[in-house]
Amino acid sequence: MKTPHSRREFIDRSIRLGAAAIAAPMAASLTAHAQEGKKLGFALVGLGSLSTNQIAPALQKTKHCRLAAIVTGTPAKEQIWADKYNIPRKNIYNYQTFDRIADNPEIDVVYVVLPNAMHGEYTIRAAKAGKHVLCEKPMEVSAKRCEQMIEACQKAKRKLAIGYRCQFAPHHLEVMRLAREKVFGAVKIIEASFGFRIGDPKQWRLRYDLAGGGALMDVGIYALQGARYVSGEEPIEVFATETKTDKVKFKEVDESILWSMRFPSGVVANCSTTYLVGGINRLFAAAETGWFELDPAYSYGGLKGRSNKGEMDFPQVDHFATEMDDFASCIINSKPTRAPGEEGLRDVKIMTAIYESIRKGRAIKLG
Amino acid sequence: MKTPHSRREFIDRSIRLGAAAIAAPMAASLTAHAQEGKKLGFALVGLGSLSTNQIAPALQKTKHCRLAAIVTGTPAKEQIWADKYNIPRKNIYNYQTFDRIADNPEIDVVYVVLPNAMHGEYTIRAAKAGKHVLCEKPMEVSAKRCEQMIEACQKAKRKLAIGYRCQFAPHHLEVMRLAREKVFGAVKIIEASFGFRIGDPKQWRLRYDLAGGGALMDVGIYALQGARYVSGEEPIEVFATETKTDKVKFKEVDESILWSMRFPSGVVANCSTTYLVGGINRLFAAAETGWFELDPAYSYGGLKGRSNKGEMDFPQVDHFATEMDDFASCIINSKPTRAPGEEGLRDVKIMTAIYESIRKGRAIKLG
Repeated sequence: MKTPHSRREFIDRSIRLGAAAIAAPMAASLTAHAQEGKKLGFALVGLGSLSTNQIAPALQKTKHCRLAAIVTGTPAKEQIWADKYNIPRKNIYNYQTFDRIADNPEIDVVYVVLPNAMHGEYTIRAAKAGKHVLCEKPMEVSAKRCEQMIEACQKAKRKLAIGYRCQFAPHHLEVMRLAREKVFGAVKIIEASFGFRIGDPKQWRLRYDLAGGGALMDVGIYALQGARYVSGEEPIEVFATETKTDKVKFKEVDESILWSMRFPSGVVANCSTTYLVGGINRLFAAAETGWFELDPAYSYGGLKGRSNKGEMDFPQVDHFATEMDDFASCIINSKPTRAPGEEGLRDVKIMTAIYESIRKGRAIKLG
Repeated sequence: MKTPHSRREFIDRSIRLGAAAIAAPMAASLTAHAQEGKKLGFALVGLGSLSTNQIAPALQKTKHCRLAAIVTGTPAKEQIWADKYNIPRKNIYNYQTFDRIADNPEIDVVYVVLPNAMHGEYTIRAAKAGKHVLCEKPMEVSAKRCEQMIEACQKAKRKLAIGYRCQFAPHHLEVMRLAREKVFGAVKIIEASFGFRIGDPKQWRLRYDLAGGGALMDVGIYALQGARYVSGEEPIEVFATETKTDKVKFKEVDESILWSMRFPSGVVANCSTTYLVGGINRLFAAAETGWFELDPAYSYGGLKGRSNKGEMDFPQVDHFATEMDDFASCIINSKPTRAPGEEGLRDVKIMTAIYESIRKGRAIKLG
């Protein structure tokens, strides 16, 4: 029996999609670089471990992007990054000088990699400076702030995308396809969970004012995303419970959360997240005539997929490079991104309902 | 690095345990067969698919047991079974003549394989007839009935065991060991789920009067057991939610349940069960320095285990044969069974609390 997970078919599909993108007509409101067919210049805002270990190296692998500028509040990092990535002095900003990016035509896109509660401010300032914005997940700590971000980008006529890297990973595209095309019949139950053992107790992720929440906001959001794109629907109800075993370390934010979501068609997703322990990294779907899963599902690399028909064989890609190239391609071709601000807002609303369910000890309906 | 899952070590351990069992002193209150070193005679009560496809074939593989008698309400089955298993006419009973087993010295053990709500009656009648009882899970549909069963067997000085076959499977013994010996540090989060797509809408499993509950009572109990023996503790709180998408088929019993359990040490178990769909068959533990899991975990055969150190390599055994031989060995050697009535009662109490949590929409404390 032919395995339903054909690498060849995937590559063929990718090539067709790529060809379509190239054939798309050029639109009017483009940055100079996009019009000239040059790589788009990215400014990285926040040079923490994600920027250092993932995003900056990923930028070197992109086709349509280049690391043009950095924004950091830590002067010691300036020279290190300037040397490593050949960034001219004039393209190095701090949080006070940030707004001057408006005068720098080398910057097309601002990638916001700051603590969650700073996403709104820097997205809005970037939009006001006339830049497109790619903002890390979670979009912000409240729906209201997300709405302000969307509004600011609309007003500035600039694109806004949220850093949902998994939406660009072949393994995730495949589980979306298996669900959408009902390869194993209709999906009935989804199990999704993601957790890791958080280290340094002083980090911003454990501070409510900067993170807005704990494991759920940081990594539970991957499980939430997975459940949403495998179901292909929006949840109509959430029901959640929280466990906190370390009340000192997790004084301000959630440690472990279990939640379920019901979708209009009757699909149920059972999800969990934790900061207590690793190894929990899975997106599973049970459908009418079979099952499929990714495990590990949400790591930066090394994803593995299987179904009751066998192993999935898909190329490992750099999710960040693919995500940034896709956003650049959307800008260049004036296409909508598949992960716009509205997508980030949806997740923030659902996570807010999950916290409400925990607080009230009952199921919460979603509008 | 040496894998912690050594088949050789397991076999060595089994041999040592076996030797210890053989060396145990013979006790006084034994059945004639046990005293004579003969195989114990089993009477199977209820000749449905479990007896037909699993238990009767398993009896042929045991060392200490033999299929001596059958009890059935379906006359057509009598000759078929008599022919197939060479059962003499006098060892064939129906539900009216059942109590006459008291006069049949060929029967040492009654294995109750009836619908859940009949377990109590037939366990008590078997004990009154002077027979040891092995009773399928779930033990009964209420804690009160379980207590009556325990009392009846105590009064008759006969052993009572519940058919928790997984407790005798090498893969499950291994995950118990990994947890108990903290091979990956202390277990922090357990995920356990078991479901299948139930067929015939007319079967007793979908009738409340016979089953006492749905997926939870039938297969969720495996996840519950798994969470209990991996944690090595008893839950102090349960929190559950139910989903019912097919209100016709599942008019009387539960279709899908998600529940969490908290244990005294802080371990949390996230569990689920369903009658809607298959492929959900997992026992996973995330510990301080690694993880381990079985998937499939609860099937009659073909279990697979792995950890972050690699695959587990353990022999596949017939769970029912091992379970029955263990019970026979407990009778022969006057040893306590590891799955006594008290163990079955504990699960029924927890499942009752899970249903209460669903009904009341809040967490339920366990005494």
